[in-house]
Amino acid sequence: MGTTTWTRRHILSLADFRPEEYNTILQTAASFSEVLSRRTKKVPTLQGQVVANLFFEPSTRTRNSFEIAAKRLSADTLNFAPGTSSLTKGETILDTAKTYLAMGTDMMVIRHREAGVPNAIAAEMERLGAKVGVLNAGDGQHEHPSQALLDLFTICSRLDASHPRIELLAGKKVAIVGDIIHSRVARSNIWSLLATGAQVHLAGPPTLLPKWFASFTQTADTPADYASRLFVHWDVVPALQEADFVMTLRLQKERMTQHLLPSLREYHQRFGITRDRLHLCQPDVQILHPGPVNRGVEISSDLMDDPKLSLIAQQVTSGVAVRMALLYLMGGGK
Amino acid sequence: MGTTTWTRRHILSLADFRPEEYNTILQTAASFSEVLSRRTKKVPTLQGQVVANLFFEPSTRTRNSFEIAAKRLSADTLNFAPGTSSLTKGETILDTAKTYLAMGTDMMVIRHREAGVPNAIAAEMERLGAKVGVLNAGDGQHEHPSQALLDLFTICSRLDASHPRIELLAGKKVAIVGDIIHSRVARSNIWSLLATGAQVHLAGPPTLLPKWFASFTQTADTPADYASRLFVHWDVVPALQEADFVMTLRLQKERMTQHLLPSLREYHQRFGITRDRLHLCQPDVQILHPGPVNRGVEISSDLMDDPKLSLIAQQVTSGVAVRMALLYLMGGGK
Amino acid sequence: MGTTTWTRRHILSLADFRPEEYNTILQTAASFSEVLSRRTKKVPTLQGQVVANLFFEPSTRTRNSFEIAAKRLSADTLNFAPGTSSLTKGETILDTAKTYLAMGTDMMVIRHREAGVPNAIAAEMERLGAKVGVLNAGDGQHEHPSQALLDLFTICSRLDASHPRIELLAGKKVAIVGDIIHSRVARSNIWSLLATGAQVHLAGPPTLLPKWFASFTQTADTPADYASRLFVHWDVVPALQEADFVMTLRLQKERMTQHLLPSLREYHQRFGITRDRLHLCQPDVQILHPGPVNRGVEISSDLMDDPKLSLIAQQVTSGVAVRMALLYLMGGGK
Repeated sequence: MGTTTWTRRHILSLADFRPEEYNTILQTAASFSEVLSRRTKKVPTLQGQVVANLFFEPSTRTRNSFEIAAKRLSADTLNFAPGTSSLTKGETILDTAKTYLAMGTDMMVIRHREAGVPNAIAAEMERLGAKVGVLNAGDGQHEHPSQALLDLFTICSRLDASHPRIELLAGKKVAIVGDIIHSRVARSNIWSLLATGAQVHLAGPPTLLPKWFASFTQTADTPADYASRLFVHWDVVPALQEADFVMTLRLQKERMTQHLLPSLREYHQRFGITRDRLHLCQPDVQILHPGPVNRGVEISSDLMDDPKLSLIAQQVTSGVAVRMALLYLMGGGK
Repeated sequence: MGTTTWTRRHILSLADFRPEEYNTILQTAASFSEVLSRRTKKVPTLQGQVVANLFFEPSTRTRNSFEIAAKRLSADTLNFAPGTSSLTKGETILDTAKTYLAMGTDMMVIRHREAGVPNAIAAEMERLGAKVGVLNAGDGQHEHPSQALLDLFTICSRLDASHPRIELLAGKKVAIVGDIIHSRVARSNIWSLLATGAQVHLAGPPTLLPKWFASFTQTADTPADYASRLFVHWDVVPALQEADFVMTLRLQKERMTQHLLPSLREYHQRFGITRDRLHLCQPDVQILHPGPVNRGVEISSDLMDDPKLSLIAQQVTSGVAVRMALLYLMGGGK
Repeated sequence: MGTTTWTRRHILSLADFRPEEYNTILQTAASFSEVLSRRTKKVPTLQGQVVANLFFEPSTRTRNSFEIAAKRLSADTLNFAPGTSSLTKGETILDTAKTYLAMGTDMMVIRHREAGVPNAIAAEMERLGAKVGVLNAGDGQHEHPSQALLDLFTICSRLDASHPRIELLAGKKVAIVGDIIHSRVARSNIWSLLATGAQVHLAGPPTLLPKWFASFTQTADTPADYASRLFVHWDVVPALQEADFVMTLRLQKERMTQHLLPSLREYHQRFGITRDRLHLCQPDVQILHPGPVNRGVEISSDLMDDPKLSLIAQQVTSGVAVRMALLYLMGGGK
């Protein structure tokens, strides 16, 4: 399954992912999608291995997605419940991770409300010479790589289901709409989409998407053309015009109490995706949302349920296949 | 295992169950009871399938019973923890269910404090053309079919362990005592017991069992003789006289704060099942309770522990076999 | 695996453990340690059996250790969540245990904040003639046998990894430092260490270790030499002098609000294990801690991370092997 060799032990950020790595993931996920269409959706790949889901920040959706992915690879899973844990007894997060390491955990899937925690844990594991893999399942406002990879797989599979690959997105226009500044999903997606050769148009209110965000990807190592393909708009119209894909982001209701937004109603009027606004896009435009959706806020309720326009259910299904691929590759898949 | 073909995808209510369906369940559960008596209590029937336990209302007992049933059929299970879920993020219940569908769930076991939620989810699954099965594990004050089916299996197995069938109950008298009006367990049991040909006598205080409840089953589709076999009493004596089986119901302590009952002590004096009162019944009378029991309220503590009189432990054991049968049949058992 | 026959159905206390029982556990755990070093860390021993983790007192670390041990023996596990359970509905603990028995549980791992609960459940199971095994995973301030057994395995394996046995500890000096009076870990460790022939030196502040504790083990059945090998010190120095192993105990922060300790800082100054104080011990002294550690309180942070001095990570790893051994032996291992 896949001919490229995988060398990355941890998946923490997409900022330095190479095109061939994206394509290995897409190809491996496509193989697992085929497995998931069978009646018996299980393979013995990770039999006897332990995947620990360390969700310091509560989550049902992402945790269940990783849990089902691990079980379909025949791994055993451990779930960490922050409310009843040693954390309340004053243990440091690194000590908690080391305890799971010592119990024989092979891979750790980590979510934390602070950016950088998965990186810190991975660094500590390396320092100890441990062969455990660390996967960032969302850290603060930093990154959420598996979400961006499942979005990428969903989009590329839409363009060529039998052979999803990043080259399919070259020259396409992708709009990302909403609270970009606080979104780890948006950050990871910007890295992966720019790597494909797509044009990435960000749209959101000035409080949730300052203009300086256009320079977000400009670091020493970034390919020169990234800057020329990343655009920031304070209006949704230029982002949607001729767009091939529209990614909407979840709006956190606490942005209102933080005075970053006047109301959900005004947000919907200015940035909500509606059937009218979709006329600005390509005729075969498709909408994505990482879920859970606030119906009638980020997206109108009828659009969300329209199987011709919405890839939202497909994203959830892709999530299991992509997470199987990630655990498989990190686990030295064979 | 079983020769009758099973055609029902969802198990939501017993109101329209046919005699042959009851008997298929009883027969299949009897086969699984035999499996459970072996040292290795597992069969590979649902290998690779996913059963999601969506308990929007917390439960340990019923959830664990379904979990162990699923695992003994070799299914993988997902558990939904309402406290840490997307529900707190404003997602609708239907969207939550659709997320589990998209993750590849094969069967959903649903408990919710509002009546009708499992039906609504099943209807949405049908609308989407999804082949997922929905099982009502208790919805508000509506129904709790798997509890009534395990009660039925317990009673019928008592009468003929090797060949439990509803015909065994024809002409028997079954008393159901307690807070009938608020009980989903009682509602499901009334449907199944009337279908067997038994006489069903309900007893409870007027606040918890109004007289109009005698007409509970009188709908257009109900067999004509149902009304003639369902009786309502505000006194426990006529219900217990000559009874073959006595089903006690759990008394919710909040009925006191709702001023529907003066005190637990008075309830026990008037409706508690005691050794004295059992003299009214048939000599080989047996007592059931869905648990958890308030000792000394619904039933006196010594009766509960008397293996000659109490089927309560047997009900819990039957629960696993019956739930295995239900998941097996819904999953297209083969 | 192991030639000695195991006759004990429950593991509730180490007070009456015999030397050959300790050695059977150590030998069995050593075999499982070897299994855990393989890539596929699973054996089919308990296939189809159910281990219920009934943690009435919340725990992540011990519960996960038992869960992973059970899964590596191929058992299915049930987890009891006290917050959402029937306990909140007024059910007694014995009735909860009987419900798990009736569901088909083969072994119960029980933690409770009250001493004696596992014993009471085991007694009830015996009364019912049930063949279920009960393991005490920590009851109040009474005992925590599996923790002491993993400590014993860690120490003996350090002395002879290929053949851990209690005779290795004869004549060695072991210090136990901290809040001894409230510690179930210390109580279990005192029994096991005295059984090996080691000298056991307890050290702690007078409020947390009264002098009368020296007579803790003096019962009718206790070997006469136990009293001569158990010492109590209100100063850490005599306990550490020439010690071969130093066991530190977790300090509960609530001891401050109970006015049993002035401050964490003063505790560390008087009883904290530091590099300086270790000079009092044998040159190859090793430190243990049951975790989670308050860094800089019971033990200085640098010592904890020094792989030459700390057995703390090894204890966690040993925990899985020892708990596999316990479940295997209780389950009639074959």
